[in-house]
Order: sequence, then structure tokens, then C-alpha cells
Amino acid sequence: MQPILTVGSVAFDSVKTPFGDVSQMVGGSATYFSVAASFFTNVRIVAVVGDDFAEEQMEIFSGRRIDLTGLQHVPGETFRWKGEYSLDLNTRDTLYTHLNVFEQFHPILPESYRPTPFVFLANIHPALQGEVLDQVTEPRFVAADTMNYWIDGTPDELRKVLKRVDALIINDEEVRGLSGESNLVKGARAIQEMGPRILIIKRGESGVLMTRDAGFFAVPAMPLEAVLDPTGAGDTFAGGFMGYLALANEMTDTVVTRAIIAGSALASFAVEDFGLSRLVRLTTEELHERFTEFKRLTHFDAL
Amino acid sequence: MQPILTVGSVAFDSVKTPFGDVSQMVGGSATYFSVAASFFTNVRIVAVVGDDFAEEQMEIFSGRRIDLTGLQHVPGETFRWKGEYSLDLNTRDTLYTHLNVFEQFHPILPESYRPTPFVFLANIHPALQGEVLDQVTEPRFVAADTMNYWIDGTPDELRKVLKRVDALIINDEEVRGLSGESNLVKGARAIQEMGPRILIIKRGESGVLMTRDAGFFAVPAMPLEAVLDPTGAGDTFAGGFMGYLALANEMTDTVVTRAIIAGSALASFAVEDFGLSRLVRLTTEELHERFTEFKRLTHFDAL
Repeated sequence: MQPILTVGSVAFDSVKTPFGDVSQMVGGSATYFSVAASFFTNVRIVAVVGDDFAEEQMEIFSGRRIDLTGLQHVPGETFRWKGEYSLDLNTRDTLYTHLNVFEQFHPILPESYRPTPFVFLANIHPALQGEVLDQVTEPRFVAADTMNYWIDGTPDELRKVLKRVDALIINDEEVRGLSGESNLVKGARAIQEMGPRILIIKRGESGVLMTRDAGFFAVPAMPLEAVLDPTGAGDTFAGGFMGYLALANEMTDTVVTRAIIAGSALASFAVEDFGLSRLVRLTTEELHERFTEFKRLTHFDAL
Repeated sequence: MQPILTVGSVAFDSVKTPFGDVSQMVGGSATYFSVAASFFTNVRIVAVVGDDFAEEQMEIFSGRRIDLTGLQHVPGETFRWKGEYSLDLNTRDTLYTHLNVFEQFHPILPESYRPTPFVFLANIHPALQGEVLDQVTEPRFVAADTMNYWIDGTPDELRKVLKRVDALIINDEEVRGLSGESNLVKGARAIQEMGPRILIIKRGESGVLMTRDAGFFAVPAMPLEAVLDPTGAGDTFAGGFMGYLALANEMTDTVVTRAIIAGSALASFAVEDFGLSRLVRLTTEELHERFTEFKRLTHFDAL
């Protein structure tokens, strides 16, 4: 079992979906990622919060294998985001993004973090992702997320980071934006030539698609009766994926495909309630059972 | 191995996609279905064509296990349809639908067809679907397709047919239209209460979802480098599904899930070229190999 280092946002999210409206709940990519990954291994967070992020908010991390030595507390307000989802939950509008203390953020790794072998760079400015990689001494497996804002706005910085990344975890629209290919198979190949040998494509309702030497691996999304809030599903997936890899600490096909299922299982819980509500009350027994449900959902006998 | 009876259209299709433009090729739901199903078993067609459907057009059926005794040849023009697909192939506009000889069509089963145990009712007026069921003497497994035109336009006739159907094979938009539920899990349950114990939801790029007693079964779509024309993919899927069921002639979970893969494999070939072009040159070896590719695509080891 190896530890994971993650850099990303810790934030106050406000979310409106057809099923409800929640204000100022603790969220952010590093939060979702680390809560998810901590089901499997120790997680070290690099992020920043303001002085409005009090003991009460810190509770979300407590009792979990999450090391907060690298969480900077600085004067000012914490990153705030508000989004509103469409009726079918497939699209969302950002109502505001207040970077606040995140605007001046530079990741500083505590000495104890520097030898971390597994690294997840959540969706932040690629220059900051690079700064983290500059500080880790023995990265063995680096995964990153990004978005069209960086793909379009900072393409050179992003290309530099991609050369240092083992796995890129993005959605299908971002695959098209980054590769310039409308076909996902061609797009995946183009992105692999930029550096990442593994590309993981998050497709929402369509599940997840992963490239590997033996061809694609695909898993459908779990059909759910109630999806309340998709916020954080992608970072939760990444947390489950990286967490399982770091737990297994090998990169066989059995491990990598199971890691995709671990991520999918965690993400399928995350969307069942607002924010982190479902994840923080999730038990390992429930997670194990959902893994088995994924097997039942997808298994068929070879000819 | 049991024979299958199908009723549907035999047509001249014209199709425009971002990858090309084809006029007046032989198509229609009964054509796609029977060519696909004939990879596995004998298929009996009930349909109608006009006097413009000559020996040359009949070639598409030749050398296959397709019984044309029930194909009516009548004076007039054959059903013609023209569609144009969007850039991402996910939506299409119908440019024209000329029913022609199909307008007065009533299915008449030759005596030899009446004891057929497996029946597929392609997407036609539910009253005509009912007329077919009135003529079969020992139906053991009946599957049907429909569309929003009948769901909205002839709801009472459709409900009557649904009571007589074992499996309904429709797309996700039609599930929502028929059930009035935006959530697929709830929609599926509502439709099962209308009669069909099995609901198979075709989701295009997202693959296929099937209800069964043991919970959902899902298979992603095969990632393809070149999708030229999605026309007929749904009927091809249905042909592969029903064909495999009729070949195995039992309804175990192993058989039903493999039948879903057989349908998905055939459909994944169908879209690789315009119209029936890919299917008519498909070999059983290629089909077998694609089935194995689906296993590789989706397999992971249980915990």
C-alpha cells in the first residue's frame, strides 16, 4: 500500500439541480479525490483555504487517512463556486467562480510529501501541476485531470505537463478539444502521442473508457434510480482509481481494470446525494457490494 | 435451432452522413433484421415491396437463410426514406418518408410461417404488429420495436400489443416517452408493468442496457475508428439478439446476455459502412472475433 499525493481545490460549493439546492457545502477537487482515495490508502493533500474554513469544515477530513500537512491556511476567503444543472443533469452552467485565496496559490510540498510515489494533479492551472511534479522526488505513477479552459487557454503549459504524466483522466468533450479529433478512438491515439500512456475518458451516463496496450477497456455507468447531484463525480472516480492502484501497488491488467471499477463504484455513490453527503457515510461493505454489482451488471460468458 | 418470423419494412433508403451520401440502397427494418439474424438461424420475412423491387434488389437476401414466401410483391413503388445525420451522427432529420405500397400493407402469414416460435415485430403500426400475432399459432418468444410516433399517436393500440410481447427493444428517448419517466430505471420498471418482462434499451454510443430478474445487464458500445452510417443499427442489433436466442433455444442468463453481445457485435459492424454494405460481406469468423473483442473490452476480475 503506497500513499498518494494530490493537489487541487478545497472549496465552498453551491449547487442547484432539479432535485434541490445546496449552499456553501465543502467541496473542491482535492476534497472529493482524497475522501474517495482514503477508502484504499493514505492521501496527502496540497491545497489552500481561507480563514473562513474553520474547524467545522475540517471535519470532513477527520477520521480518514488524509494528511493535511500540506493544506495551507491563509488570510482571505476560500475558493467558492456555484453551478446549476440542466433537467437531465448532463450539462451545467457556472453561476460564479470566486478564486479568492486560490488566485495566489502555489503548491508547496512539505518535506514528508516529497517521496510520494502516486500523484494526482486535479484540474488546476497546468503550471501549478508542473510545480508539484518539480517537488516530488520519486514519482512512480502520475495522473492528471484538466479542462477545456486550460486546453484552449494555456496549451503550451499543458503540453509540458502531459509529457510528465502517465495517465490523463478527462471527459469526452475534453478529448475532442485536446486532440482536435471528433472520433474518440483517433482522439485517444493523438493524446497518447502527447505523453500519457493511459487515457481515461469519463463519459457520464455512458460510463468510462480506458486505453491500454491490449485495446480499450470500457465499463458502463451503474443504472441508478436517483441521481441528485453529479458534482465531484469525476474527482471521486479519480480518487477510487488512484486509491485502488496505490493499494495494489502493481500495474497488471487485473489491477488497472479493477481500479476503473473502484472509481466507477465510488462515483456511482457520490451522485446519489448532494456534495460529499453520500461518500462520507459510505461504508467499505457498501463499496464492496457495489463492486460486485458492477460485475453482475457487465458479466457475460465468453463463447 | 428455431426459426424466426419478422414483420417490418423492406425499403429504398437514401442517407446523407458527414462521410458520404448514398441513394436508393436496399434497406428497411425487416431487411437489416433478417440479414443479421440469418447469421444464426432461418428467418421468415413478412413485408411488401413494389414492382420497382427487381431481381437485382432481391440479391441482398440470396445465399442466406431467409425465407421470402411472405414477401408480397404488389404494383406500385416500394417504401422510400431519406435521412440526413448530424455531424456527430447522434441525431438525424428525416427528409422524406414515402410509404408507397406500405400504406395499404397488411401482413399475411403463409401457412408455413404460422407455427414460428420466435417473432420479431419491427417498428410498424402497432395494429399491424397485432395482426401478425393473431396469425402465429405457437409464439414462444415475441420481441417488438416501436417509436415515439406510435407511442404518442396510437397509444391504445400500442398498449394492447405490449401485453403480448416478451421483450421490447427501444431507445432511451422512447423509454422516456412511453413511461413518462426521465429516469431510465424508473422508466424501465413502468414499461415492464405494461407487459414486456424484458426491456432492452438501445443507447447508441452508450451501448445497450437490458432489464432482467437479476438486475440490469449493460454492455458499452465498441469504440470504433470509423462510423460511417448508423442507419439500421437498431434492427441489426435486434436481428443478432433474436438470432442468437433462436439458435440457443433456451433462455438462461448465459444465453440472454450472450444474445445482447451478438446483437451489439453485429450492430458494431453495420455502422462501419453505408447501409447493408458491411453486413453483406461480414464473415462468421469476423463476427466471432468481434464477440471476443467485446469480452476483452468489458472483462474485469471479481474481487
